Parts: sequence; structure tokens; C-alpha cells
Amino acid sequence: MKLGFIGLGIMGRPMAINLQRAGHALWVHGRRPVTMDVLVEAGAVACSSAADVAAQAEIIFIMVSDTADVEQVILGEHGLMQRLQSGQIVVDMSTISPVATRRLAQELATRGVDMLDAPVSGGEVGAINATLSIMVGGKEKTFQHVKPLFEKLGKNIVHVGDHGAGQVAKACNQIVVAVTIEAVAEALTFARRSGVDAARVRDALMGGFAGSKVMEVHGKRMLDNDFKPGFKVRLHQKDLRIVLENAHQLGIALPAASLAAQHLNALMGSGDGELDSAAMVKILERASGTK
Amino acid sequence: MKLGFIGLGIMGRPMAINLQRAGHALWVHGRRPVTMDVLVEAGAVACSSAADVAAQAEIIFIMVSDTADVEQVILGEHGLMQRLQSGQIVVDMSTISPVATRRLAQELATRGVDMLDAPVSGGEVGAINATLSIMVGGKEKTFQHVKPLFEKLGKNIVHVGDHGAGQVAKACNQIVVAVTIEAVAEALTFARRSGVDAARVRDALMGGFAGSKVMEVHGKRMLDNDFKPGFKVRLHQKDLRIVLENAHQLGIALPAASLAAQHLNALMGSGDGELDSAAMVKILERASGTK
Repeated sequence: MKLGFIGLGIMGRPMAINLQRAGHALWVHGRRPVTMDVLVEAGAVACSSAADVAAQAEIIFIMVSDTADVEQVILGEHGLMQRLQSGQIVVDMSTISPVATRRLAQELATRGVDMLDAPVSGGEVGAINATLSIMVGGKEKTFQHVKPLFEKLGKNIVHVGDHGAGQVAKACNQIVVAVTIEAVAEALTFARRSGVDAARVRDALMGGFAGSKVMEVHGKRMLDNDFKPGFKVRLHQKDLRIVLENAHQLGIALPAASLAAQHLNALMGSGDGELDSAAMVKILERASGTK
Repeated sequence: MKLGFIGLGIMGRPMAINLQRAGHALWVHGRRPVTMDVLVEAGAVACSSAADVAAQAEIIFIMVSDTADVEQVILGEHGLMQRLQSGQIVVDMSTISPVATRRLAQELATRGVDMLDAPVSGGEVGAINATLSIMVGGKEKTFQHVKPLFEKLGKNIVHVGDHGAGQVAKACNQIVVAVTIEAVAEALTFARRSGVDAARVRDALMGGFAGSKVMEVHGKRMLDNDFKPGFKVRLHQKDLRIVLENAHQLGIALPAASLAAQHLNALMGSGDGELDSAAMVKILERASGTK
């Protein structure tokens, strides 16, 4: 199949490589030309703009950083819309605003182009090993058409609902993870400051109602004081900004997500943006002084 | 063994029955005499005060509601201290203040009496079926001595640390559960208000980093709008009061636990104290209006 891939960063490049290895012809575009080298050596065509990709590929994947970047790729001066024609499909795997996603899907539909939003979780390791979780929004027929390609990129692939539903699911994921990190951080801080071995508390809690993947993974990082990512504060902060912008637009109160976002803001301010977001525990420790 | 049991409510009575069934002689005291009937019929001795229990039993279990109740049982006018002698053991299985627990352990030690704090989770069902989780604080030797009795009451029995450590672990458990309920409630509310099927979002999230026992159990209650307890708002509110009193005394900032406590307060105000604490989702729904 003739595929396009736009955005060849830490996530996008290994994903594009996985599609190429599956035997598909690739037209690629990355802001930094060097990111295209490995793919071009293996036969991909380097394009100087998104529009040039749109001129060739049947299905075009996008994996960039933020809402404005996706808008630029689709609607910008040398964007996809310059060359897209009816029947092509745009699959945006970036994590961006659900509200903006619906607008973009409408815009593309005017040109007879269908869109899927398909944000992922699983990070760089998941991208390389093709074990990403993929949360998909859009039409069922389009989902089924693209699904064999998703299966080259990830393992847990769920069609959540119509346009934007993938982004909503990803937003929900980031809310739950951030607030659960805060929950575990507060509990382990309470244990430590009460003079109790926090590792034994974690052991005692793990099997019961307090048990979670975050308690297991992020709780361990907190106990070890080892905040090598994992998932970076900088990216989690960005994802919660998207959540809270959408909450603002939709009129939804999300008090604990908002609190967690403030703690991520504080970590950015202290130069901890490249740490794993389990570093939220540092905020509590700093607030009451270490002990 | 000659055992005492004080506090024969929803939790205490089935626990006392389990100890009796294991073949131990029981001296019991309940504020409402009727609660002693079943036990007395099976051979227990009804006592009119805690002091009378202390006059007979080697190991005395307490299962009452709150810090002040335990203080009354131990230090009050007809309390255990009136009759306790060196070598006896007091096992407090109530959920109360860790700080107060340490004070009580010191007080009892002046009389040569050792104490264990051993709060539980698992609710009425766990008490009846002897499947409680038991988090224990106190001396290792005393823990080992009482452990065979704990094994008649529960399954997951962890010696967390010295006096108060069991209560600290229970406090941590209640922090994590309350804040994780808030996390799941905010995510599912975000999904619903975004016009997405919240059940499918929960399915998509369950296997990943957002997965937790709370997502599984409380998330389901939120989706079904079925708040039959489970664990009641009224008790969770009380437990978080204990947490926040201790945070106040120790100088620990617990912003998300505090937020969750406010939502439990609000549910008490709306007459929802007998619902499961998954009902915290109602606060978010009320705040932004149902949709």
C-alpha cells in the first residue's frame, strides 16, 4: 500500500520503520531532513512538505507534538489540504485536543477525505517494539480499513467511537494516570513522614483496593528515588494542558486533574521536565521539607 | 486461649464469632447488650464493661468506630486500664489515628501490657468470610504470638512496622482509594461530557497504566449508576478526617486527599452517606449539571 508518514521524531520514526518493514511503500516528511535518512535508505521517498506526501500516499499518518502542529500539517501553507483528493485517509496518531480533532475531521470531510484520530500510549519502547496501545476515533468502516496497519504498530487497538473519541480516551488515560500518581505520592509521603517504611506500606496495599499499575510502576520509582522516564513530565504537562483546555471549552470541573497539572507545572519550573512524571512526589517532599 | 472482644458491631461481631468457632473461650462486651446474644448462646461470657473483660482475657481485641471510642475503651472510667496486668495483650483492630495509637501503646506499656494496632480492609463480607486484609503495627514478637488468631480473621496479614504502622498503612490505603476514585470519576465524567461512551473508554484504559482495582470496581459502579456499598461514604469520610488530622499534626501537605475529603463532606451534606464512596462521581456531575 502507498503510505505517508509525517513527523519522524522519537515516536514517529520507529512507527514508520515498522510500516516499512511490513512491506509498504512510504512517502515521508520530517521537519529535520536527517530524520528521514534511515527510511530513505530502505526505499522511502523523502518529501519536502506535507502537501507532497498528500500527492502520493493513499493513507497518511501524522505523529507530531501538539494541536497546532497537526493543524499546520493539515491546513498550513504546504499542508495536506493543498493536494488531498477524495478517498484518501488521514490518520492522526498525535495526542491533541479532541475538540480540534472534530473540527479537522469536518474540514477534511469537505474534501471527501476521511480521518481517524488514533493517539497511542506505550512510549518509545512501545513504538519500537510495535506494542503500543492505540485508541481510535472515527468511522467503523475506516477503522476496519486501517486496522491491519495499526496491527503493525501496536497490540491493544480499541475503536472507542466517532471522531475525537480516541483523543478523549487518551485524555482520560492521562487524567487517571496523573491523579493516581498524586494519590500514590501522597500516601507514600504520609507513610515516610509518619516514620513508617513506605516500601512495606506499598507491599501491604498492592493486592487490595489501593492496587494499581501506577502503585506498581510509579510507586517503585518513588521508593527508589529513580525518575528515569518512562513518560516525561514535559509531555504529561502538555497532555493535561489539552485536557484542561477541553474542560474549559466544554464546562467540566476537573479539580484533581487541575491540581496534578499544577504539580507538573511546578516540576517544569524546577527544571525537572525530562524526569518521569512519578517525580510529582518531589513536590510533596519539597512542600513540607524532606525528612 | 482466653480471648476478649470489645465492640460487636457490623465488623466486630462476625470477627468474634470466627474466633469462637476456632475454639477459643470468649469474654465479650458490646454497648448494646443484644449484640452479645449469639456469642453468649455459643458459650461466651457477657461482660458489663471493658474492665470486666480485662479481668479475664489474655488477649483482648477491640473493634469500635473511632479514636475517641478506643480511648474510652482503654482509658475510660470502666476501661481496660482499670484491670489490665503485665503480660496481657491489647489488639486494636479499629481504624483510628496513628498518632493516638502510639500514645495508647505507651500508656499500656507503663502497665507491662503490649499493644498491636491491626486495622483491616475488606468490609462486612471480609469479616464474615474471614478474608480481611490486616495491617499490623507493633513488636515482632507480639505479632508472631497473635498471628495464628489473625489467621482466623483474614488472609492478607502484613506486619508493617512498629506501633502505629498498621494505622499508617490503613490511612495510606484510604488516601489512595479516595484519590483514585476521584481520578476515575473525573476521567469518566470527561468522557461522558465529551459525548463518548464512557464504558468503552474504561475498556480501552483498563489494561494500561490507567488500570487499577478502583477503575475495575468503582468505575463499574459509576457506569452502572449503582452505588450500593461496598464501602460507605460515611466511613470513608471518617477515615480521611483521621488522615487529615494526622497530616495537620505532622505538618504534611496532602492536597488531593484533602480535595477528596471535601467531596465526601459534600456527599454527607446531600444525604448520600450510606452510598458507596464511588458516589464521588455525583459531585462532578452535579457541579457541571448532568448531560
